[in-house]
Amino acid sequence: MSVQENVAGTLARPSADQAPVDLRSDTVTRPTAAMYERMMAAEVGDDGLDGDPTARELEAYTAQTLGKEAGLFVPSCTMANLLAILAQAERGEQVVLESSAHIYTSERGSGTLTGLFYLPVPGTAGAMDVNALEDALTATGHRLRTALVGMETSHNNAGGAVLPLAHMRTVHDLAHARGARVHLDGARLFNAAVALDVRPAEIAQFADTVSLCLSKGLSAPVGAILAGPRDTIAKCRPLRRMLGGAQRQIGIMAAAGLEAVRTMGPRLAEDHRRARRLSEGVNALAGTISASSPQTNIIQIDVSRSGRDSGAWVQRLEGIGLLTRPWGKQKLRCVTHREIDDAAIERAIAAFAKALV
Amino acid sequence: MSVQENVAGTLARPSADQAPVDLRSDTVTRPTAAMYERMMAAEVGDDGLDGDPTARELEAYTAQTLGKEAGLFVPSCTMANLLAILAQAERGEQVVLESSAHIYTSERGSGTLTGLFYLPVPGTAGAMDVNALEDALTATGHRLRTALVGMETSHNNAGGAVLPLAHMRTVHDLAHARGARVHLDGARLFNAAVALDVRPAEIAQFADTVSLCLSKGLSAPVGAILAGPRDTIAKCRPLRRMLGGAQRQIGIMAAAGLEAVRTMGPRLAEDHRRARRLSEGVNALAGTISASSPQTNIIQIDVSRSGRDSGAWVQRLEGIGLLTRPWGKQKLRCVTHREIDDAAIERAIAAFAKALV
Amino acid sequence: MSVQENVAGTLARPSADQAPVDLRSDTVTRPTAAMYERMMAAEVGDDGLDGDPTARELEAYTAQTLGKEAGLFVPSCTMANLLAILAQAERGEQVVLESSAHIYTSERGSGTLTGLFYLPVPGTAGAMDVNALEDALTATGHRLRTALVGMETSHNNAGGAVLPLAHMRTVHDLAHARGARVHLDGARLFNAAVALDVRPAEIAQFADTVSLCLSKGLSAPVGAILAGPRDTIAKCRPLRRMLGGAQRQIGIMAAAGLEAVRTMGPRLAEDHRRARRLSEGVNALAGTISASSPQTNIIQIDVSRSGRDSGAWVQRLEGIGLLTRPWGKQKLRCVTHREIDDAAIERAIAAFAKALV
Amino acid sequence: MSVQENVAGTLARPSADQAPVDLRSDTVTRPTAAMYERMMAAEVGDDGLDGDPTARELEAYTAQTLGKEAGLFVPSCTMANLLAILAQAERGEQVVLESSAHIYTSERGSGTLTGLFYLPVPGTAGAMDVNALEDALTATGHRLRTALVGMETSHNNAGGAVLPLAHMRTVHDLAHARGARVHLDGARLFNAAVALDVRPAEIAQFADTVSLCLSKGLSAPVGAILAGPRDTIAKCRPLRRMLGGAQRQIGIMAAAGLEAVRTMGPRLAEDHRRARRLSEGVNALAGTISASSPQTNIIQIDVSRSGRDSGAWVQRLEGIGLLTRPWGKQKLRCVTHREIDDAAIERAIAAFAKALV
Repeated sequence: MSVQENVAGTLARPSADQAPVDLRSDTVTRPTAAMYERMMAAEVGDDGLDGDPTARELEAYTAQTLGKEAGLFVPSCTMANLLAILAQAERGEQVVLESSAHIYTSERGSGTLTGLFYLPVPGTAGAMDVNALEDALTATGHRLRTALVGMETSHNNAGGAVLPLAHMRTVHDLAHARGARVHLDGARLFNAAVALDVRPAEIAQFADTVSLCLSKGLSAPVGAILAGPRDTIAKCRPLRRMLGGAQRQIGIMAAAGLEAVRTMGPRLAEDHRRARRLSEGVNALAGTISASSPQTNIIQIDVSRSGRDSGAWVQRLEGIGLLTRPWGKQKLRCVTHREIDDAAIERAIAAFAKALV
Repeated sequence: MSVQENVAGTLARPSADQAPVDLRSDTVTRPTAAMYERMMAAEVGDDGLDGDPTARELEAYTAQTLGKEAGLFVPSCTMANLLAILAQAERGEQVVLESSAHIYTSERGSGTLTGLFYLPVPGTAGAMDVNALEDALTATGHRLRTALVGMETSHNNAGGAVLPLAHMRTVHDLAHARGARVHLDGARLFNAAVALDVRPAEIAQFADTVSLCLSKGLSAPVGAILAGPRDTIAKCRPLRRMLGGAQRQIGIMAAAGLEAVRTMGPRLAEDHRRARRLSEGVNALAGTISASSPQTNIIQIDVSRSGRDSGAWVQRLEGIGLLTRPWGKQKLRCVTHREIDDAAIERAIAAFAKALV
Repeated sequence: MSVQENVAGTLARPSADQAPVDLRSDTVTRPTAAMYERMMAAEVGDDGLDGDPTARELEAYTAQTLGKEAGLFVPSCTMANLLAILAQAERGEQVVLESSAHIYTSERGSGTLTGLFYLPVPGTAGAMDVNALEDALTATGHRLRTALVGMETSHNNAGGAVLPLAHMRTVHDLAHARGARVHLDGARLFNAAVALDVRPAEIAQFADTVSLCLSKGLSAPVGAILAGPRDTIAKCRPLRRMLGGAQRQIGIMAAAGLEAVRTMGPRLAEDHRRARRLSEGVNALAGTISASSPQTNIIQIDVSRSGRDSGAWVQRLEGIGLLTRPWGKQKLRCVTHREIDDAAIERAIAAFAKALV
Repeated sequence: MSVQENVAGTLARPSADQAPVDLRSDTVTRPTAAMYERMMAAEVGDDGLDGDPTARELEAYTAQTLGKEAGLFVPSCTMANLLAILAQAERGEQVVLESSAHIYTSERGSGTLTGLFYLPVPGTAGAMDVNALEDALTATGHRLRTALVGMETSHNNAGGAVLPLAHMRTVHDLAHARGARVHLDGARLFNAAVALDVRPAEIAQFADTVSLCLSKGLSAPVGAILAGPRDTIAKCRPLRRMLGGAQRQIGIMAAAGLEAVRTMGPRLAEDHRRARRLSEGVNALAGTISASSPQTNIIQIDVSRSGRDSGAWVQRLEGIGLLTRPWGKQKLRCVTHREIDDAAIERAIAAFAKALV
């Protein structure tokens, strides 16, 4: 493929008739043509020495967008979350997380490197039970001190649910009252902001630190930002090096990230609209499967009454050109994103119809 | 700056007369025009799902170049080294390192996450004292089992010294005889290969795993490769995710790395030639400073008889357009690289001459 | 107090009329006169050098009693559990525990030193939900490998409940089928054996390793035994030193432990009988509190309908000569033991009666 | 053996003619008759609940003796050192130790549980090189912050050498000036105090925390004390539980420890006198071995010119009734203690004479 073709972005890809509809994740999104242009033109430096100017710009711009003092560009949202934890909790302390939070279910391995205890608290639609949280924050007897409380919005395992701002305020205030910090896993924070029709900073205000993934719906190829107080972010820089996350001429990637943060937020509304259409379309089939009512770009499809488990469904749908992911044994997860247009949604609904027969 | 200008690479930069000569590190090297072209044209995928095709190609090509079964593309050489350690040593075991090895002196922080003990063994020109190594490998009484022995070539703190192959074979055989694995920190492995005039695989054969930095003399913007046995590298994939080093459309960066590994090795000979010229030029000044005789692209300049410490020298040289780094209080480190041409070397020598006055 | 008085044991203590009835824990039990005699007469050695002969005898005798190959005498049951975990799970692996198990609720801090993830699984009467266990054992995607599954019997937080042997067999077989080991927190294993009327080894057979506390109902002053396969226990010896649990002339304490294991088991039946009497007595008061029906020596008393929380109850009862412990806000815990005779039980019931008024 | 015989202590042992002379360690010392009496008579409590009264008394008395605010009774000096480190250094920080310090050479395993980096600094006669210490304390670039500096006196691997008080003051002041705490491994602190003819507190003043082993020359069966500031010791209590070092009716052991701290210090002068006699006697043999000039109760015997290594010497001496320990391949270690009288010293010298033939 030549440079010109790739810069053209999605045009260079196989036609929609041939390629499967890929609803597995919004992480599959490839960079836009504008991102390629910015990557080529980016001013770069050595981020291990003086700092890379484009990375600095991305960090400053995103921090401001999130209403925080400082930001740090890191290779992934997993690293952003890990740094937030390492910087805000000492060995032998406790991190409290809603029991289906991504950090708890999928990033727990990183916890084994930190000397911390991750305590799960049950929740509804991704929102922690506040009484259980309060109990967890009360360290008595043999219990560990809670240094950090985590939230996640939009919430992946809760089907893209958005935490109500009032809930976030309650959690934030409870944690602070007990001397704990708050971290927000904002991998899909912009989806939550679009759904609530507020600026990202209006959500991020309820956390001391917040991570933002650039390579999901925002479509940058890689990377994430951790934002927070200046001294906390300063503590994260040597920790990032320690983990192997400090890179050199990283401005090339930062340039794509900057384009993503600056321009890609508003179009998430389209993904949300298409997710609702997919949900309605599936439910209108009136079969043995039912789709959740999405607040953002994630739809969960319950196949528990269908006589087949999620693995069988994934295989069958793949055979008719639709890629999805099993979410436990009884559900499928579908995610809309920039590379899924209205036609792809109709093809997806048709695939479900066909698979139900 | 427009796309076209940047693709043109070094041409777009300020003229040599104006910019300082930057000998601080070979990490400052910016991507070549060919790298930019490949980045634009690279086929990309989601490396967290099916894998990114360009990253796979880079991993396979580099592994073959190093004579190993498999490779893994990671954000930095620090992460490559950390993964090699995590995958080959269990909690409570020992990693033996030459006492001035980069992993020991500068990456020790990562060791605090691993539950391992890093044991330093004294060395000469970067080569461990073999008797001390043998003693360290003999676990008796309260001593910990050594799971891993590290080597480094070319050796940063030993002024770019290259380990003799016979020494590497001895260390390798001793370690294996005692049930320990061997990891080679090959951040500048290609420099060592050029200096010894052997293929990289002839060096890498004396280690189970080997890291290679793509963003030093090889000039890729970011990243490193860890290569080794197929099952060890397979163990590293989930560990990379755990550390936050798994990325999505990483093929863009892998494309630059592939160009680096394929084409940038031979030209390191020029950097070595220029390093020798710089050394000779400085020593010919017959002043109170003396330069080491470089085997590769690193020169150490001893300022201990000059009446000024290294910090003062760095400042003074910066004032006359030469950037260097203090290496302890008594030495400066100068590193030649692709962006340092013959004229820059002469300017550097002239700067030393002027500073000596 | 003279030697003679103390050897006489409980006789030397204040009369029952004056001292409060202490139902806080069976850990308050002081050594018997026979234990004091054995402590004085014990042959001792240096357990850090050749080994202490009495400790060896205790280890061998207890291992045989539990049907295991080898045993290790350690300062506490917490250390026995920690050693079992360190010896059977590597960094980055997972330990699965019933969510109210003592290791999970009260020993989690030790987990922060191990590089492991402690995963809670919900349970009933201390017995894990087997489906949830099976799910936890299935490592797919980002999930960690489970190296160890824990059980606890009798179960402290489940009110001294005894795990059915059929349940233990199921958990054991499931774990082994998935390549995981099983550890039994048998702090009160002899209570479970008495309740089930089986030999301790008939319970311990469903675990690879088992801990036994010597200083609860068995009345030794300190210490616990970890028993298991010879090679696992051999691995624990240097780990015990690492934690600071290796001691010198420890035979003095081992002598008391040996007396405890040899002679103190059968009399636990009395504690269980008295616990039932206490439960019946409290329930017969027909007040706003209700006592659990104890299988062993632990009674939980629900005060949630009484209009006072557990803290208030503890204070009020203390004022009338009865010591108990709050168990959350809605329950009290009472534990019968060797120093609680029939008269003390009647005094306890009377105290509850008085407090209810 | 009956109670009476054992209370009689050393009288009950095999006669000196038959038993080997055991110079392997002062840890082999058995309790005195007075200790047995105190153990029998000790008031005990539950140290996991209200606290054990005799343990409290031992902690208070020893803290006062060492000039510290508070003390904690722990199972071993290894645990005392580990607690001091856990309480005074956070994950990712550095502990600086003289390179032959016992914590560095023999307790490093515990470091693998702490998330800390143990940095060795070269020394002479157990005293760190102060310039190297200063360099280690200067955290720049990628270096870790040093949270704690350790000293050891008398110094085991330096042949029982005693640190000069002026050196201790220098290390203490340097550490404090750089924001680091100081821990003193005082396993044999009383030997140092006797050698310097000062009160233990005059030595301990140069450390924030200090450990004292009760079961070496002081002859208690087990245990150690960690002493230091009240808030640091308070932090250590839950950490002790975490490690499994909290015990129940521990007053029995504390009683022996109290007798040890109160009465056994002055008699260490005899051990030192006998160590000097042993050294002189061995050197007077004028053979191919030479004994160090002991400051305390440890003698190192250099066998490097004898044609046999230390292992061979240990075996040969054992055959003629003298137990010693190899200290590396070229040295033996001999330790005098309460169970070694003048006659035993003469027998030891005779054994060396015989072995030299």
